[in-house]
Amino acid sequence: MVRTPTPDDRFSFGLWTVGWTARDQFGDASRPALDPWEYATKLAELGAWGVTFHDDDVVPFGSDDATRADILRTFKKAVDDAGLVVEMVTTNTFTHPVFKDGALTSNDRSVRRFGLRKLLRNVDLAAELGATTFVMWGGREGSEYDGAKDVNAALDRYAEGIDTVAAYIKQQGYDLRVALEPKPNEPRGDILLPTVGHALGLIAKLDNGDIVGLNPETGHEQMAGLNYTHGIAQALWAGKLFHIDLNGQRSIKYDQDLVFGHGDLLSAFFTVDLVENGFPGGGPTYDGPRHFDYKPSRTEGMEGVWESAAANMEMYLLLAEKAKAYRADPEVQAAFEKAGVLELAQPTLGAGETIQDLLADRSAFEDFDADAAAEREYGFVRLNQLAMAHLVG
Amino acid sequence: MVRTPTPDDRFSFGLWTVGWTARDQFGDASRPALDPWEYATKLAELGAWGVTFHDDDVVPFGSDDATRADILRTFKKAVDDAGLVVEMVTTNTFTHPVFKDGALTSNDRSVRRFGLRKLLRNVDLAAELGATTFVMWGGREGSEYDGAKDVNAALDRYAEGIDTVAAYIKQQGYDLRVALEPKPNEPRGDILLPTVGHALGLIAKLDNGDIVGLNPETGHEQMAGLNYTHGIAQALWAGKLFHIDLNGQRSIKYDQDLVFGHGDLLSAFFTVDLVENGFPGGGPTYDGPRHFDYKPSRTEGMEGVWESAAANMEMYLLLAEKAKAYRADPEVQAAFEKAGVLELAQPTLGAGETIQDLLADRSAFEDFDADAAAEREYGFVRLNQLAMAHLVG
Amino acid sequence: MVRTPTPDDRFSFGLWTVGWTARDQFGDASRPALDPWEYATKLAELGAWGVTFHDDDVVPFGSDDATRADILRTFKKAVDDAGLVVEMVTTNTFTHPVFKDGALTSNDRSVRRFGLRKLLRNVDLAAELGATTFVMWGGREGSEYDGAKDVNAALDRYAEGIDTVAAYIKQQGYDLRVALEPKPNEPRGDILLPTVGHALGLIAKLDNGDIVGLNPETGHEQMAGLNYTHGIAQALWAGKLFHIDLNGQRSIKYDQDLVFGHGDLLSAFFTVDLVENGFPGGGPTYDGPRHFDYKPSRTEGMEGVWESAAANMEMYLLLAEKAKAYRADPEVQAAFEKAGVLELAQPTLGAGETIQDLLADRSAFEDFDADAAAEREYGFVRLNQLAMAHLVG
Amino acid sequence: MVRTPTPDDRFSFGLWTVGWTARDQFGDASRPALDPWEYATKLAELGAWGVTFHDDDVVPFGSDDATRADILRTFKKAVDDAGLVVEMVTTNTFTHPVFKDGALTSNDRSVRRFGLRKLLRNVDLAAELGATTFVMWGGREGSEYDGAKDVNAALDRYAEGIDTVAAYIKQQGYDLRVALEPKPNEPRGDILLPTVGHALGLIAKLDNGDIVGLNPETGHEQMAGLNYTHGIAQALWAGKLFHIDLNGQRSIKYDQDLVFGHGDLLSAFFTVDLVENGFPGGGPTYDGPRHFDYKPSRTEGMEGVWESAAANMEMYLLLAEKAKAYRADPEVQAAFEKAGVLELAQPTLGAGETIQDLLADRSAFEDFDADAAAEREYGFVRLNQLAMAHLVG
Repeated sequence: MVRTPTPDDRFSFGLWTVGWTARDQFGDASRPALDPWEYATKLAELGAWGVTFHDDDVVPFGSDDATRADILRTFKKAVDDAGLVVEMVTTNTFTHPVFKDGALTSNDRSVRRFGLRKLLRNVDLAAELGATTFVMWGGREGSEYDGAKDVNAALDRYAEGIDTVAAYIKQQGYDLRVALEPKPNEPRGDILLPTVGHALGLIAKLDNGDIVGLNPETGHEQMAGLNYTHGIAQALWAGKLFHIDLNGQRSIKYDQDLVFGHGDLLSAFFTVDLVENGFPGGGPTYDGPRHFDYKPSRTEGMEGVWESAAANMEMYLLLAEKAKAYRADPEVQAAFEKAGVLELAQPTLGAGETIQDLLADRSAFEDFDADAAAEREYGFVRLNQLAMAHLVG
Repeated sequence: MVRTPTPDDRFSFGLWTVGWTARDQFGDASRPALDPWEYATKLAELGAWGVTFHDDDVVPFGSDDATRADILRTFKKAVDDAGLVVEMVTTNTFTHPVFKDGALTSNDRSVRRFGLRKLLRNVDLAAELGATTFVMWGGREGSEYDGAKDVNAALDRYAEGIDTVAAYIKQQGYDLRVALEPKPNEPRGDILLPTVGHALGLIAKLDNGDIVGLNPETGHEQMAGLNYTHGIAQALWAGKLFHIDLNGQRSIKYDQDLVFGHGDLLSAFFTVDLVENGFPGGGPTYDGPRHFDYKPSRTEGMEGVWESAAANMEMYLLLAEKAKAYRADPEVQAAFEKAGVLELAQPTLGAGETIQDLLADRSAFEDFDADAAAEREYGFVRLNQLAMAHLVG
Repeated sequence: MVRTPTPDDRFSFGLWTVGWTARDQFGDASRPALDPWEYATKLAELGAWGVTFHDDDVVPFGSDDATRADILRTFKKAVDDAGLVVEMVTTNTFTHPVFKDGALTSNDRSVRRFGLRKLLRNVDLAAELGATTFVMWGGREGSEYDGAKDVNAALDRYAEGIDTVAAYIKQQGYDLRVALEPKPNEPRGDILLPTVGHALGLIAKLDNGDIVGLNPETGHEQMAGLNYTHGIAQALWAGKLFHIDLNGQRSIKYDQDLVFGHGDLLSAFFTVDLVENGFPGGGPTYDGPRHFDYKPSRTEGMEGVWESAAANMEMYLLLAEKAKAYRADPEVQAAFEKAGVLELAQPTLGAGETIQDLLADRSAFEDFDADAAAEREYGFVRLNQLAMAHLVG
Repeated sequence: MVRTPTPDDRFSFGLWTVGWTARDQFGDASRPALDPWEYATKLAELGAWGVTFHDDDVVPFGSDDATRADILRTFKKAVDDAGLVVEMVTTNTFTHPVFKDGALTSNDRSVRRFGLRKLLRNVDLAAELGATTFVMWGGREGSEYDGAKDVNAALDRYAEGIDTVAAYIKQQGYDLRVALEPKPNEPRGDILLPTVGHALGLIAKLDNGDIVGLNPETGHEQMAGLNYTHGIAQALWAGKLFHIDLNGQRSIKYDQDLVFGHGDLLSAFFTVDLVENGFPGGGPTYDGPRHFDYKPSRTEGMEGVWESAAANMEMYLLLAEKAKAYRADPEVQAAFEKAGVLELAQPTLGAGETIQDLLADRSAFEDFDADAAAEREYGFVRLNQLAMAHLVG
């Protein structure tokens, strides 16, 4: 139904996605664990361009240096042989119980120091493998009980940790940028930096914020009932959309990590429309990888794992085709016009207009007929129905 | 059960709270509208220190200048006679249908100009009445359909509008700060600046962001499933908690605007604890008004209106007492110690410690026994139970 | 893009949908009110087959008998002239403040009696106009505070009221069935009978439950995070799906009443699939009206009102086409087979098998290889992707 | 702060609560596994009266008969020695991957037969240990994709399975009742029987529904944004509240299983008020165990495990004291009167009044002054504030 993906599409996958053995909160693993290079090789066959991983996805936690070197050598060779790029690396600071109260914001300073060292070590690995993005998901940075965490101190420590990572990247001269991944809750009751916005707010206070941006995940924003496309739009507006994690989520509930498009389909359409076609009125664009962070459902065996991986790319390509046609459609253009979508790029004050000029403009207030202006027909529903006609029609 | 509030408590109310006639989405008004000064006078009798209002709460939309002057004179006198402070003023940019697609981010430029003029006019009024905070709630700034709004342009316009208001305040030399009030949805499907975080992200990009901060509302953050106390904590951390809107909300649903404490009670306790007692480890504090933005339930008559207003203050005072005892309790102090709550204020890197020093510290990583460290007992549940013992015991 | 609807499609609309003047919780009306027959006539032109209404939508609350008769005569003629059916009638027991604590479950007995009389009067009107369904939405039956409502007594009164309405229908020999419409909250903090399930539970205890069923609304179930298609499926299974209210909702938030399909699109596809094609393995089917209960967005003028009405039907027809092709696709049939979708219709016990027989069957337990059985590949993700290929491809 | 619990309080705990090793979706176990009898013994020391368990909590899945008998002998002795009652037994049909698509509603018939056998075997064990309640939580009965499950067939199978279990209980003459435990989602995207209501709806269609009722869990209803106290109230009203699972949940998110009262505290107060004091106007009451189904937070060690177990009982006792005083308070009684809380027990129709009598009563409609009646002051906010004064004051 849609063309086969190619490396030019720049699709990438976390190894932990196809590599999830489907052990969940209430159940044991339903699939075997393969070697990391097996996942990578198969993803390449399916048309992926890149892979990403947590340190512990490839090298088991606590491996000695020799084992580590050995595994990484094998892994690197497999990735190279498959023609894959390692575009992003991230650090597991959540599985081991030492991180039960967080890594960078654990109440225990020795844990914070250990977490920071684990991060710095992984920065070196990321650089070594040629990754350009270093994602930080602080899934354990948070609390269940408000009394248990001094949030002011926690944000100080979070900022300290991120700044240290960024400073190290700069010191070493690595071509690497940090991308924070927000999430509102799960596994903690309340996670610090719960949304794209909160992360932007923190970044603005960092010393090395220039190389720190965002890696928003579809489902994470939707777990707070927020509009993912609006989220990445604000990150773009702020110059901070460094990476994206695409997947699917159905309403506000536990983190589902469905195939991209298998959650809120209409929202996925507009996400792809923004990523592929930019804002209607121009402005900043995203040209990073199309990265999937999903989980093959626990009901699936390995066949289903590969089919679900392919489904992510297929959904993206399908939606990209539809979005292109939608934007090119003259009816849509006319509806944009009627709705004033493009009018919004025009500044509210005229070129060179001062506040005093505005205050003196009687047409703007004293002589403005609000009741008449209220009658403007925006035609938003019809515009949305045109999108539907392209998406489903 | 608790002492009567006094002006020293600095409780303030929006006139639109007790003044809500209980017309809702599905029903007609169940209470009469009084004159604005009647609400103010009665609030003073109940022990309130201040009142706040939208322009249209006092002067009906579209009043001519003479009527406006007349009303304001009467209002001012009543407020003064009652010994009330007008601590905050805000602008109604949501009721009139001209604002159906927003004010500062309406797709219609003439509406944006009108909205901006309405705001600037109200800045003058705020200053004239001695208010020190100018709240901006952009309830109509948003969309139902992703295609209907160019979010990049919208954020540009939002920033332009806020910056213009702030620039005007500076030009005029007013002792006034702008406080943005986030909300995730309702009345729009998705509102721009949906959470405290998103507003902090925007403020960081403003030209006049130094006098722009936040007015977070309890229920608004909770409508996104977020922790309100964490929200105001991050605003404090960023130096941006300019004002607060206290009320009650029960889970993720429509905006309930219940009495403060009548929603998530445990969360309200920790909110008051933070506002009254600051962070456990010190840091920025809030010393602004204790402002209530709630709605007396539609089932209530005027008697219930006043009882509900009193209930807000009573709840706050009750919780403040409890929070003070909680912090002073040596058992709580010991539990803080055990939990490492105060340890978090200690930087992760030592004084003068460089990244290289950290990397050379084998005790932080190579010799760190993660399994042993994982066994630390934080005692968070007991700490929470101690809070419960103070709150309920 | 899709054929024009005809009366054979049996599309119907509430007059309150296109008739909503867009007065919302935070804003004044943005559209004029037309006469009820104007809405009806226009809906017929768009291809609708039927209309539905609350008593007060046509005859203003409190009208005297002569006015009422007059209005109803005009309305009846317009409906007949337009070739429309009045397929359902419902009663407004929520707008007037007398119902602020509910109608059938108000704590005030005189209100309960008044509410019941208003309902009985409307039963007569429903029968007179030839409606076959009498919907009861108890939007005000509930509470904000647990102490304010004796839920046991409230359910007794709710049951009494519904039973009385049903008994009256039987007494009068009307060809009319009652359909309850659940909703979890808004305008009350917690509404009684919050979901399809709770209503089914109540109906099972009624004396006249045989003519009482359900009218589930898409968005109402989704406001509780529930799967609407599962909801109508259970109602069908229980023989109680008497009517449906189709619309759109995006996640858990205030009641949005968007155009059908403009909310959770994938869910809408499966809803139409069930309504049009029935369960995969056969079983009870729905053959009632395709009724829309939505609100044209407040940003729309009258042009947008009609376009949005048309969009509901267009979405339905589009999805119906796709769903038909999906079911007919041999690949889908094969995926059903592999997934065991049709296998589920087979009883777990064999024909005539007793519990003792089952206990004696060693292949079912003692000799059953759970690990081997756990390896079955269901292929659910691929099946879903096939649905996607039909929906979007 | 509150008296020590005693067996007379009839507190019971699932062994899987204190026995949770804190392996979660994103992390490894943070606590060791003890032997089942160690948990039981310690719970008895803390004041618990009873314990409950899943088959696999005590006897590992797949144990041979000799091992099983051995373990059960040791367990039984420990429980007896500790003076504990085994009041409820439940079956694990969710951990092993064979149940990945459910047990009673798996698309695979051989799995359904295996699941049913596992259940029947556990019925015998429940009876043998003297349990009087047999809880069935079908956590895997559901789907992520609407196409993957024929819900009509699934409900047929679910009903068949439950009916078979109930029939077996009757056949064997066991003093045992089945209690269904609803949950909306997690670990499946949508679980069948998502709420108390849906389970009541299914029970009404069973052949052996007389011994099938409900075991509602606080957090499960709250995960759908529903009022737990309303949920158990409807179950009581239907004569179906057979058991309760008390715990804590904060808003709509993943299943938190916090200590009872550590979630929505005000809701917990009214839950205890209903369980201890019944409905204000009388009616059915609950006299079963006070059973806790919670998880000690992953941050806790074994010390925290026991403290959290104790906290559940302490919270319950605290709230029970407060609730008793609340009901006894003459001010509360007066507020009940004013609010009409007790008036609701009065039937809407008078004794012997027919529908025709009601229709003839002009005072009920023709002469009823709705505007005047609308002015009634219910005083609900004050009533709630009185509850607050008892709870917090």
